[in-house]
Amino acid sequence: MKLLEERIKQDGRVIGTEVLKVDNFLNHQVDPALMEAMGQEFARLFKDEKIDRILTVESSGIAPAVFTALALNVPMVFARKKQSLTLTDDNYVADVYSFTKQETNHIIVDKRFIQAGERILLIDDFLANGQAVQGMLEIAKAAQAEVVGAGIVIEKTFQKGRALLNEQGLKVESLARIQAFEDGKVIFAEA
Amino acid sequence: MKLLEERIKQDGRVIGTEVLKVDNFLNHQVDPALMEAMGQEFARLFKDEKIDRILTVESSGIAPAVFTALALNVPMVFARKKQSLTLTDDNYVADVYSFTKQETNHIIVDKRFIQAGERILLIDDFLANGQAVQGMLEIAKAAQAEVVGAGIVIEKTFQKGRALLNEQGLKVESLARIQAFEDGKVIFAEA
Repeated sequence: MKLLEERIKQDGRVIGTEVLKVDNFLNHQVDPALMEAMGQEFARLFKDEKIDRILTVESSGIAPAVFTALALNVPMVFARKKQSLTLTDDNYVADVYSFTKQETNHIIVDKRFIQAGERILLIDDFLANGQAVQGMLEIAKAAQAEVVGAGIVIEKTFQKGRALLNEQGLKVESLARIQAFEDGKVIFAEA
Repeated sequence: MKLLEERIKQDGRVIGTEVLKVDNFLNHQVDPALMEAMGQEFARLFKDEKIDRILTVESSGIAPAVFTALALNVPMVFARKKQSLTLTDDNYVADVYSFTKQETNHIIVDKRFIQAGERILLIDDFLANGQAVQGMLEIAKAAQAEVVGAGIVIEKTFQKGRALLNEQGLKVESLARIQAFEDGKVIFAEA
């Protein structure tokens, strides 16, 4: 998505060889017009998938996910992230390991908000090692719902998330695909 | 806001005399069309205030705030909530005590995203004891920004938040005002 790539070039901050900070338009400060455009693009990419519900993880997934949900005219659910939890029968839970923070969080979805047989689209801000998407896949599986794809805002193709999801046959659409960071610059993957 | 009151009557779950669960359309599952309508209503209510930026707190404030930001054509910033933190010079920090959870969290905003002299609109999902709004006010004050008002999705008028904010001369606009819960039903305050 050209608009997003331009924005990353203009406002993204590369830190070392693995980290891209986009906190001035995506995950701390948020550009609402860009979120709307991204939501419309995800809706276009998955328009034939007969989606019943969007699933994301708080907090950075919420803005792109809610605009995708608006464009597809379906509800959006954001999984809650918790470090500790009291297990109950009311929730689906999956573990998500963060390589950046080197800690495991639980993600939690109320059983009322994901139903057997539904067609679910996952949305997330970043695809790096694929752990958050993997956690959402586990929750959908526990609910006997079908995940029809994952819409990712920014994919880092040099990390292992894409391969992990491809192995499971998941359709993944990323709005920007980054192949490397070189000398503080972002190198996008060829389309 | 009639649309929101109807939705609370239909889908809100009253628990005891103080708690309203709206997790099926606002703070776990999210109705995107309702969020868009609420954002447009907040924009209408504050249209003459020359707003530069929207400030909210993750996670439940994000959806209403991003649609308000879209309608007003300004950026939105969500404060990060953390239980523990490493203090740095890069962030504004305020403490927010949760009466429900009986714990104190810190809310954090990067200093780049709130500037001296700016006109800020606060958005939040609930006004009960006013602690989250109070925390955002402290951050704006530290940044020497001016808070022109607070847009609240659901206000519980029987708790002390409104009085706390009125004392400070803050303009507060709530889309639904709840005066009491009686026999599991929601009693709205007169307009």
